[in-house]
Amino acid sequence: MIDPALSVHGVTVLRSVNDLRQTVMTWRHGGLSIGFVPTMGALHEGHMALVRTARETCDRVIVSIFVNPTQFGVGEDYATYPRDEARDSALLEAHGVHALYAPAVEEIYPSGFASEVSVKGISEVLDGELRHGHFDGVATVVTKLLLQGFPDRAFFGEKDYQQLQIIRRLVTDLNIPVSIEGVATVREADGLALSSRNAYLNADQRKIAPTLHRTLQTMAQRFADGEDSKALSTWARSVLLDAGFDAVDYIEVRDAKTLSMIEDPRRAARVLGAAHLGRARLIDNVPV
Amino acid sequence: MIDPALSVHGVTVLRSVNDLRQTVMTWRHGGLSIGFVPTMGALHEGHMALVRTARETCDRVIVSIFVNPTQFGVGEDYATYPRDEARDSALLEAHGVHALYAPAVEEIYPSGFASEVSVKGISEVLDGELRHGHFDGVATVVTKLLLQGFPDRAFFGEKDYQQLQIIRRLVTDLNIPVSIEGVATVREADGLALSSRNAYLNADQRKIAPTLHRTLQTMAQRFADGEDSKALSTWARSVLLDAGFDAVDYIEVRDAKTLSMIEDPRRAARVLGAAHLGRARLIDNVPV
Repeated sequence: MIDPALSVHGVTVLRSVNDLRQTVMTWRHGGLSIGFVPTMGALHEGHMALVRTARETCDRVIVSIFVNPTQFGVGEDYATYPRDEARDSALLEAHGVHALYAPAVEEIYPSGFASEVSVKGISEVLDGELRHGHFDGVATVVTKLLLQGFPDRAFFGEKDYQQLQIIRRLVTDLNIPVSIEGVATVREADGLALSSRNAYLNADQRKIAPTLHRTLQTMAQRFADGEDSKALSTWARSVLLDAGFDAVDYIEVRDAKTLSMIEDPRRAARVLGAAHLGRARLIDNVPV
Repeated sequence: MIDPALSVHGVTVLRSVNDLRQTVMTWRHGGLSIGFVPTMGALHEGHMALVRTARETCDRVIVSIFVNPTQFGVGEDYATYPRDEARDSALLEAHGVHALYAPAVEEIYPSGFASEVSVKGISEVLDGELRHGHFDGVATVVTKLLLQGFPDRAFFGEKDYQQLQIIRRLVTDLNIPVSIEGVATVREADGLALSSRNAYLNADQRKIAPTLHRTLQTMAQRFADGEDSKALSTWARSVLLDAGFDAVDYIEVRDAKTLSMIEDPRRAARVLGAAHLGRARLIDNVPV
């Protein structure tokens, strides 16, 4: 196989849709299966779990790094979102990734760009209600990335559970021929879900942060035991505020697939929370 | 090649996404190129011009017939839109079409369907302003059909000029790997653009109908000669009403690509009109 692009730190770096397609086509003609891990960079062990799962099931693995402007709202951290491609690409090389797709913003959104993919209902609750347009930005860029690369499988973390369910929905709805694979959240020893935004926490906040996961777990157990979901939300909210969180956006039991309200404990459920702690907005979720 | 589906009137009829993909894959493995002509049925010579162009440039031609509910507004003619698959499939066979893709509504929009593709700006003017949600319905179903079949080329009539430009935009924006081909409008001897909805005209209305095309042509000539576009719209509106049209939705000179307002006669322009005549709403357009 001829590498059609320049290498940095040993991992092939692709900057354009054409280079990505050329690389994928070469591999595909060689009978190789292709796994794709879309990221916004600032890579950590959570991303590496995606990479490991991709490597286990696919012959070639492409990781994309694209800090997507359209999924950041006004006043959110687009400008300051951590970017360090040299560090990220070294990490990817060490984990046996075959190509890094790192396009410029103009490659993804050229002049005149005007299209949007949106998923009704599931995009309008929880984070969708609070972060206006966020999931439309996610849905649009994921659609584009999948149609640019045409991988066999694409890997997304369960940490962003609502995003994962939205992507499953749009891939089914738009007939995009790819298998979407959810990968379990990677956590610190004390339960805190890994996130690029954990870097925003100071030492005191870092000690408080695992309360989010602990509270979600307790909610899941108590919901399974028959307690009322609304009463549990009220309880959990006060637990987080008492622990030192600055504000709670939501902490709720929802239908595991549609994320609509759930009363019946026999249906598959997921407990999801989002809360502010200093500069960080932490999100997490657990199954019931 | 083994036909994976039943035949009616000799043309292979495909009812499911799987059958469509199977057929396309078989052809593709045989090194054949694939042309796709999406329609809503009620086929006429305008559609046959699309088929002929497709046959000239592609080894295999698939025509889809799907009366898409999501592009009809409240009070529009979804229920009464003419449907005659037996007649249409015989016509397609006579024109050498290789497969007819005619899925049921549930195959395109299964339970839980929630996604939408929209193109901002160009979908919000002219017909988009008057037919709320129409172009979102078109953009979504065309995205789905293209991703179901993955043809090399897809053929659309210039008669639905705004639709054509919207589809060009979304295919570029979402990186759908297909070439979009516009085909010139087919007209009766007196200039009336062929349309399934011409069947709604009675004999008197049929005599009035060509005034739309004639007026568009005059506007194009006078705009090229330097006349003011707004003044031309006012003039054209009165011509149509005087001729017997019941109402004029719009008749305007626009930028040929974006359909935004245009003043500068040196930019590529298109003149587009929509007007009501009895039960029919006629649309047409010409280049400047």
